[in-house]
Amino acid sequence: MAILERCDTGAIAQLTMNAPERLNCLSDEMLAALQSELDQIAADPKIRVVTLAGAGKAFCAGHDLKQMTAGRTSDDKGRSYFADLFQRCSNLMLTIQSLPQPVIAQVHGIATAAGCQLVATCDMAIAAEGTRFGVNGINIGLFCSTPMVALSRNIPRKKAFEMLTTGQFLTATEAEAAGLVNRVVTPELLDQETLKLAETVAGKLGSVVKIGKEAFYKQATMPTEQAYDYAADVMVQNMLFQDTEEGIQAFLDKRAPNWSQ
Amino acid sequence: MAILERCDTGAIAQLTMNAPERLNCLSDEMLAALQSELDQIAADPKIRVVTLAGAGKAFCAGHDLKQMTAGRTSDDKGRSYFADLFQRCSNLMLTIQSLPQPVIAQVHGIATAAGCQLVATCDMAIAAEGTRFGVNGINIGLFCSTPMVALSRNIPRKKAFEMLTTGQFLTATEAEAAGLVNRVVTPELLDQETLKLAETVAGKLGSVVKIGKEAFYKQATMPTEQAYDYAADVMVQNMLFQDTEEGIQAFLDKRAPNWSQ
Amino acid sequence: MAILERCDTGAIAQLTMNAPERLNCLSDEMLAALQSELDQIAADPKIRVVTLAGAGKAFCAGHDLKQMTAGRTSDDKGRSYFADLFQRCSNLMLTIQSLPQPVIAQVHGIATAAGCQLVATCDMAIAAEGTRFGVNGINIGLFCSTPMVALSRNIPRKKAFEMLTTGQFLTATEAEAAGLVNRVVTPELLDQETLKLAETVAGKLGSVVKIGKEAFYKQATMPTEQAYDYAADVMVQNMLFQDTEEGIQAFLDKRAPNWSQ
Repeated sequence: MAILERCDTGAIAQLTMNAPERLNCLSDEMLAALQSELDQIAADPKIRVVTLAGAGKAFCAGHDLKQMTAGRTSDDKGRSYFADLFQRCSNLMLTIQSLPQPVIAQVHGIATAAGCQLVATCDMAIAAEGTRFGVNGINIGLFCSTPMVALSRNIPRKKAFEMLTTGQFLTATEAEAAGLVNRVVTPELLDQETLKLAETVAGKLGSVVKIGKEAFYKQATMPTEQAYDYAADVMVQNMLFQDTEEGIQAFLDKRAPNWSQ
Repeated sequence: MAILERCDTGAIAQLTMNAPERLNCLSDEMLAALQSELDQIAADPKIRVVTLAGAGKAFCAGHDLKQMTAGRTSDDKGRSYFADLFQRCSNLMLTIQSLPQPVIAQVHGIATAAGCQLVATCDMAIAAEGTRFGVNGINIGLFCSTPMVALSRNIPRKKAFEMLTTGQFLTATEAEAAGLVNRVVTPELLDQETLKLAETVAGKLGSVVKIGKEAFYKQATMPTEQAYDYAADVMVQNMLFQDTEEGIQAFLDKRAPNWSQ
Repeated sequence: MAILERCDTGAIAQLTMNAPERLNCLSDEMLAALQSELDQIAADPKIRVVTLAGAGKAFCAGHDLKQMTAGRTSDDKGRSYFADLFQRCSNLMLTIQSLPQPVIAQVHGIATAAGCQLVATCDMAIAAEGTRFGVNGINIGLFCSTPMVALSRNIPRKKAFEMLTTGQFLTATEAEAAGLVNRVVTPELLDQETLKLAETVAGKLGSVVKIGKEAFYKQATMPTEQAYDYAADVMVQNMLFQDTEEGIQAFLDKRAPNWSQ
């Protein structure tokens, strides 16, 4: 069995992290498999949405502490290995955000440390009741600094600070209220509700979702005036798409659009 | 009947978009009327608060798709028309935010696409139960890129992403929980609750609300240290207003202030 | 009795503003006492967490209006006094945020104007049921511009605007929902719940909490990519701490860590 499984349903690539005995931790192998698969998907216009789940009891429990500890045996006590590791991990997160296709986290069990970062990084997330979310590295003396980057861009400031400095977990319901996940469903419905959301997005024009997702993150950190200039340009480009012309005409004609995609 | 009606109640300018048969869409005419009226209000020190409502079944359903489609007949297939249109629309939104007076959206029925952007752009918003909010251009192949600028500065990231890529609506209650509106009232109370909020703000010193509103948006994107330097300057200016001196003295004397405004 | 009392419980410095007859307002003396005590604490590695409470009926009612009014008698009508005052106040807020130790506000009664700013500025806050939060300077003609800097970095935009321009208060429950406080407890439990949170944080490695808190605010305003570069550096440094090596090893060995701190 591969460490990362992929099963395509129509235009949806369903990825499943598959190292359940290690709680799907982001080992060197898992990071490489995710990076490689996402790079392929980025170049594949047939795929319109990605879902990301975990096999076994957990979604993802963060970094691989055994591997990290093994990295300490080098002459520099692991410094260059750690620098490389956190860069690979950050690259993966940035790849998810810059991927042309939306990525939906399908979360159950636990999502801790870099596993919680994965949830925060995905464009959307659906969680099963009973899921617990934490950035609890502080408990072992490792502040979740890189997970914090994603987390603090999802939830209010004081809540993020508390999670990071106490290591305490959010329940799924608390995660939803805080904005970390889009909604909570029963464990039985997790697969199907995630797929349903993926299918909804996959039913839109892929080219339009792509320019929209790119614009979403680009404009987020711009001053408002600059953001409007940029977004107005994106709207003009979008209006000139053939399929958009057809979409609007179909709406005015009260008929279904006849799209090329 | 004018496409934009204005009725002043004391220091409150009540604007009503009045093209109910077109769901108060932001046609060239509606954009021009709003821009012109707001430019006048900006220069009118007697007006302290603006409310913005829609006549008929909807608050505002976004851009005028018929007019946009008609724009495609030019040699450049509409490119320059669209560029001009989105710039006029963005200018309107920036005008609302830079207006000396607070603007309160009074929302009912539907607020979609650029109509939802209007709600997000107004400084405050009160919604009637039953109102639905959407940035659903994705359904016809037009990503709501400019509405996204305002929306993503109001509500949490994952919720905004979901609305933009699925086209799904928020209920009024969901909009309140997300931060898109200040509160939800019964349809019967919408007029009166909006007016009440407007009257509360109109009862404050207009000069002080003005410098406060300007500072609110200016400091929002500054780094914290710079924001404090700037806000401290604003406080000093404010302390030197005659009416502020009187306001503080009256408070210390336990009497009502005798303000010049 | 000192205007600021300090009582240390283990590694926790418990500060209590002690001018109850003036609702613990931020007079020149209170600002100086807070600044001085926090400067001492910043240099004291034995202290890992700070709590900040108010004696009497209120947490803190903002600036000292009598003192400010007395400042108007100078030749420049108070301009230089006010400039200096707001700079001292902003410095205090920035000191709290840059303090190596987390600061927890223990809030009861009222927290208004600069008192509400104190709550927003602290890294975490616990409030007693019945506490009311306001930035109500607008009622006396003084827009809460500097409090706005902290408040608008804690709660959603439209809610902050409403508080600032109407002067209306949030209840403790509303403050929690908005993100201004971490949680609400009964007045009887306020001391003990605040201490419990402080003890939880004090139980972590102080050196790690310190680099984490610094990184929390630094990365917050960076673009995501830059934030990841910075946070990855912090993680590498953290991994090379001896106590972190021990913490991770202890976790892998399923035993308690034997930390030097």
